[in-house]
Amino acid sequence: MSGGVDSSTTLAIAKKQGHTITALSFDYGQRHKYELNAARQIAQSLNITDHVIVNIDLRQFGSSALTAPINVPKKRDEKEIGMGIPITYVPARNTIFLSLALALAEIRQARRIFIGANAIDYSGYPDCRPEYIKAFEKMANLGTKAGVEGDGITIEAPLINSTKADIIKRGTALGLDFSLTFSCYDPVDGGLACGECDSCLLRKKGFIQAGISDPTKYALKVKV
Amino acid sequence: MSGGVDSSTTLAIAKKQGHTITALSFDYGQRHKYELNAARQIAQSLNITDHVIVNIDLRQFGSSALTAPINVPKKRDEKEIGMGIPITYVPARNTIFLSLALALAEIRQARRIFIGANAIDYSGYPDCRPEYIKAFEKMANLGTKAGVEGDGITIEAPLINSTKADIIKRGTALGLDFSLTFSCYDPVDGGLACGECDSCLLRKKGFIQAGISDPTKYALKVKV
Repeated sequence: MSGGVDSSTTLAIAKKQGHTITALSFDYGQRHKYELNAARQIAQSLNITDHVIVNIDLRQFGSSALTAPINVPKKRDEKEIGMGIPITYVPARNTIFLSLALALAEIRQARRIFIGANAIDYSGYPDCRPEYIKAFEKMANLGTKAGVEGDGITIEAPLINSTKADIIKRGTALGLDFSLTFSCYDPVDGGLACGECDSCLLRKKGFIQAGISDPTKYALKVKV
Repeated sequence: MSGGVDSSTTLAIAKKQGHTITALSFDYGQRHKYELNAARQIAQSLNITDHVIVNIDLRQFGSSALTAPINVPKKRDEKEIGMGIPITYVPARNTIFLSLALALAEIRQARRIFIGANAIDYSGYPDCRPEYIKAFEKMANLGTKAGVEGDGITIEAPLINSTKADIIKRGTALGLDFSLTFSCYDPVDGGLACGECDSCLLRKKGFIQAGISDPTKYALKVKV
């Protein structure tokens, strides 16, 4: 749970379905640590008391724009955002996160792992596609005690085929307070969203298309 | 690379095949940390200069006999060792390790990940079976830039169908110094192998069946 639009809406969906929930976030050396505060606040707002924040420093493995001091791409147009795998790709990130979630699921005897992966309004990450999620689920059931001797593990990605606008509408209908969510890859001092990275641009576009006002405070007030 | 018989022999096999090698070991909160010293010495003995030791504290997730202060099973007979998934199972361990290896492989632009998984003389872990390894490989190629845009990633488990005796013969033929390897799950003070845990028992049996003398110094001199 990153504290962004997708994972927060996913949490609200799981909550609505009545499950006993452990929220899981990662402190992985990301530059945008403000998201962890957002994740904490979202979890509290949904009355999730079991929130695990796992330390796994992905900087041990080298760089991406999300963990190293290199420039996050700004002001890319829709075509650019949709083309290829961008520099913000973190090698095997969802695989690492889902693997750790899998361990936690086994320990908590949970049967479902919810992930806010989205293959529509996304940034071209291969580990957000439905075929990847299915392959992870298969592997998870072959490689764990829960899969082999227990009830099995399901990976649920309820937003995988939704547009960002649909996700925002769905979250809003569930009463999610989007002012608590945080999407920016490159926040400026004080924690304001930059308004120009891919993630901010996708978020802005989603709110506009949903016809819902975006409660985010963006750093840039002047249009260039 | 744990520094045990299987991962050390796997390293020797990869080296013999002429690959440029990054060795990868994990400091995961295991009680048997002596194995990390063994891993370092084995890597040095094979002239591997790039040896990454990743910190990922699996104790964040709860307990198994390998990370928590509970009793490692001792003096189990072959039938007991072969039956079911034992208490020493660490939830999703190989999935977590392979996921982190996958990230490192992408960063190093490696195309192959070697793992010493073994489904014959093993302790009943589901994440050591060929079908699991194949499923991980498929997932890895769907979920990474290396898989989608690059040359793909192969998971190589050259010992998966070998007996422990065959592995020891193969390592010996490759000139591996087994006195540097360490297998025990529950070493006694000073780092001597206990001689009674599943891993020690499988190792002992393997050397006997291979007709090769076991250079391990075991703590127990008195037969009970």
